[in-house]
Amino acid sequence: MIGVARSKWVNTTILSIFLVIGLAVVGNAEEADPQHTAAILDVLDTQTQAWNRGKLEGFMAGYWSSPELIFTSGGRVNRGWETTLEQYRETYGGGKASMGRLGFDEIEVHSLGPEAAWVLGRWQLEREGASSGGLFTLIFRQISGRWVIVHDHTSVEE
Amino acid sequence: MIGVARSKWVNTTILSIFLVIGLAVVGNAEEADPQHTAAILDVLDTQTQAWNRGKLEGFMAGYWSSPELIFTSGGRVNRGWETTLEQYRETYGGGKASMGRLGFDEIEVHSLGPEAAWVLGRWQLEREGASSGGLFTLIFRQISGRWVIVHDHTSVEE
Repeated sequence: MIGVARSKWVNTTILSIFLVIGLAVVGNAEEADPQHTAAILDVLDTQTQAWNRGKLEGFMAGYWSSPELIFTSGGRVNRGWETTLEQYRETYGGGKASMGRLGFDEIEVHSLGPEAAWVLGRWQLEREGASSGGLFTLIFRQISGRWVIVHDHTSVEE
Repeated sequence: MIGVARSKWVNTTILSIFLVIGLAVVGNAEEADPQHTAAILDVLDTQTQAWNRGKLEGFMAGYWSSPELIFTSGGRVNRGWETTLEQYRETYGGGKASMGRLGFDEIEVHSLGPEAAWVLGRWQLEREGASSGGLFTLIFRQISGRWVIVHDHTSVEE
């Protein structure tokens, strides 16, 4: 009986170890690494700061500098960093006065493993005589050690 | 010299092997596994087929059956499979006549590793006297061996 009791204890311990490892693996896919979350939030913070100083290229630094960047808004698909920059410049001009004041809110970071994450958030833009806002979904990837937005789907609140 | 030549050949071979492995790893993050792409396209195909038969729950089977599912459209965020189903039912009713004819187009699948992908596509909905359309960004995850949509950001063309 003592032998059985010992064996049960050992089995329970082994089971517990596997359970902990199992939960850690599951947790990895669902919960964002705090360091990754911090790095992603930092990219977004840098973006709004740059925008509010009228620095469009600084804002654009958060995006993947690649022809493969995909930005979608209002039924339109822009491909490539350069095209996206041009689209922003056309719509908002290049200075502080025309760009207005941008704010991000209700940001949530969802992990997709060690090198990818998706982000949901709300944006508000106050420009002279015109306020707009809505939601964005961003796909972040860690490329060459840096977290960058590889896809942005922005929509306007109806 | 023959010794050196051999050693060069060996080094080149080893280098080539590492290059191939390296490219395979890089490719893995950027190019979708054809089997994963096929599985994801199958989910979307099943969705439109179910919708066009007036089967809302069949359409919803493509989504992660979890309170953590996040569906966003028109500035609104719905959380959970049940809430998303209710929202669809409220907007489109539960039968073939009120649901109309749904089509997906220009679908592209982007890999985010072995267990995640994001999808960009265009949707069109023909209902009696009303046509609408726009873009969607979907986040897919492979959970318990099945590819499911964990996040949907749908926007309407302006």
